Amino acid sequence: MRKISILGSTGSIGTQALAVLKNLPDYQVTALAAGNNIELLLRQIKEFKPQLVSVARASGAAQIKKEFPDLAVFSGADGLSRAATDDADIVLAAAAGTDCILPVLEAVKLKKDIALANKEILVAAGEILLPLVRKHGVKLLPVDSEHSAVMQACPPVITDGYFVYPVETVNRLILTASGGAFRDLPAAQLPLQKSADALKHPNWQMGKKITIDSATLVNKGLEIIEAHWLFGVPYAQIEVLLHQQSIVHSLVEYRDGSVLAQLGLPDMRLPIQYALAYPRRVAGAVPKLDLLKIKNLTFQAPDLQNFRGLALAYEAGRIGGTMPAVFNAANEIAVELFCQDKLKFTEIPRLLEDIMQKHVTINNPVLDDILAAADWAKQQGAILWQKVR
Amino acid sequence: MRKISILGSTGSIGTQALAVLKNLPDYQVTALAAGNNIELLLRQIKEFKPQLVSVARASGAAQIKKEFPDLAVFSGADGLSRAATDDADIVLAAAAGTDCILPVLEAVKLKKDIALANKEILVAAGEILLPLVRKHGVKLLPVDSEHSAVMQACPPVITDGYFVYPVETVNRLILTASGGAFRDLPAAQLPLQKSADALKHPNWQMGKKITIDSATLVNKGLEIIEAHWLFGVPYAQIEVLLHQQSIVHSLVEYRDGSVLAQLGLPDMRLPIQYALAYPRRVAGAVPKLDLLKIKNLTFQAPDLQNFRGLALAYEAGRIGGTMPAVFNAANEIAVELFCQDKLKFTEIPRLLEDIMQKHVTINNPVLDDILAAADWAKQQGAILWQKVR
Repeated sequence: MRKISILGSTGSIGTQALAVLKNLPDYQVTALAAGNNIELLLRQIKEFKPQLVSVARASGAAQIKKEFPDLAVFSGADGLSRAATDDADIVLAAAAGTDCILPVLEAVKLKKDIALANKEILVAAGEILLPLVRKHGVKLLPVDSEHSAVMQACPPVITDGYFVYPVETVNRLILTASGGAFRDLPAAQLPLQKSADALKHPNWQMGKKITIDSATLVNKGLEIIEAHWLFGVPYAQIEVLLHQQSIVHSLVEYRDGSVLAQLGLPDMRLPIQYALAYPRRVAGAVPKLDLLKIKNLTFQAPDLQNFRGLALAYEAGRIGGTMPAVFNAANEIAVELFCQDKLKFTEIPRLLEDIMQKHVTINNPVLDDILAAADWAKQQGAILWQKVR
Repeated sequence: MRKISILGSTGSIGTQALAVLKNLPDYQVTALAAGNNIELLLRQIKEFKPQLVSVARASGAAQIKKEFPDLAVFSGADGLSRAATDDADIVLAAAAGTDCILPVLEAVKLKKDIALANKEILVAAGEILLPLVRKHGVKLLPVDSEHSAVMQACPPVITDGYFVYPVETVNRLILTASGGAFRDLPAAQLPLQKSADALKHPNWQMGKKITIDSATLVNKGLEIIEAHWLFGVPYAQIEVLLHQQSIVHSLVEYRDGSVLAQLGLPDMRLPIQYALAYPRRVAGAVPKLDLLKIKNLTFQAPDLQNFRGLALAYEAGRIGGTMPAVFNAANEIAVELFCQDKLKFTEIPRLLEDIMQKHVTINNPVLDDILAAADWAKQQGAILWQKVR
């Protein structure tokens, strides 16, 4: 029996992970951490019977304690750390934001495997996380569909529990992108798009923030930074290909010219289950891909002129240090401002660029440098947004 | 330094293999066996300096002996066996026809690895070859692009030198087919096609026989039988998908719903090099796949009504015993008759079916049963062809 702790259990990935776990009978849910959706968390507690839960606020914790007086209930940053460091064997990091970074680092130090759905951890703190992962010999299992695809197309060799990807034989990682909600729009229409339009994603059912990031291609930018750390591949060897059908989830080109690709319906339960069941392949509730129904798979170059977020991500990644954390935090505030109609869609990358230009990068940062840089970027966003209009 | 013997060195696969070997400096060519193309073989001897050669006829052997008096030169079936059982570590079986079966079985008994491009060996004698491969712990490396794709998408675990494919986790092998030269023709046009038309293959540059087999879909039928033996997967789990671009060389659907595919330009040097360099990936002379140029990958169901050869192959495979050998030999004679304009294109499957219907299958055959059944099928072809007109 494997014990699992889920950080972000009421979010899109968290709820799908719990659905997947019903299909994996050798798993026991020992901890659940959520934000403010107390109602859903209460239902999850009833069904999965964790030993420990944590929520964002003390008021939520009190509400849960009333219904489950014998349950260990915590709140805030401390609660999230407790959920990550409780007696689970594997931690699913599916809570968004930088709050997740410290708890995951602590879990790694306790030799817990990590199933990684939170992008911030690798984007902002990949430089800190990876040496810890190596030192403690834990498995870092990607949950993103693209990185799951790369892992399947370039299977790791496991040495002392640590994944060694045979990337010395790899020419390129090719991450696919659906292109998001606005991929077919004329450039002149882009400034007129509202957040409600961005949420009409053509292929994937996902959370709000990631769906907007998909429309700006910033999501793909965050993913190239994640791929850089996860697989140890330089940015020059990570490319993005627009693939409208979201069937090919990514490709690995080997140096002999052979390309391996992972395909499947756009359904997050597949990469979630792959990460949790790894190295097993378990027959699941995921519908099968029928290429006779899909008929066509198309590929084109991403539009880096009108969707500059991707180019900025490469730049942030190549600069390294605290810059990727700044890029990510600046994007968080930009998306918030866009959702409040304070920024136009096309102003998102302009704000990102302005904040990046003002940032003085700290190389070889410690966690406090990263968190401070992210806070600084958010403050800058609140100051600078009126200038980019 | 690995020593290699090439059976069929002057054919399409043989010549491409020699080109690939220039890229693999740790290989030494120790034996070459060819048919009647003495001129080309003489050039190959000059360049690759084998210790032993063999040709089809004694007259050819005499011609070679005159130019290379110190070389060991043989001819006929005995010569082919000597070339297979000389001191090579690996034998590339690229000579067509059933003559190759016995030499390869002998090579396996001497614990030589086999790179397999000859279809007859697995189709006619898979039932005999596979137990020998297991017993002697040799590697059987597919050279066909489809089987190479499956091997790459479902990497074997090597136990005592023997490949164990994790097929218990596989739902389906999906072999792709270009559809051959006539895939877009209206059914009414098919009887009018001549062998010269069939040779205009849209994607691959291959030998004559296989190009016609590609047009009838018999080639794909032979490949499903090969896949059955190579990977130990039942016929019910092997499917064929028409894929006009010949970029996706085959796919493996796992039981969790994930699909892995191998892609590359249609260039046989890639699977040849993969087999010979295995498990290494060597940067080679193979041009790279550029999906931005290809743009579209299409998939459709094969037309089993107008291209019945594929359905007959499934039937032959499922019956087993001597039937696949009969299917293959009947097809050889049918293609010959088609090339002589004695059979129409649409009469090829009719002749195959007539011969299969007359055959009394021998179960658990020994090699002599298989060879006798193949001879019988060819005789029947010569007798029956006028009846199917």
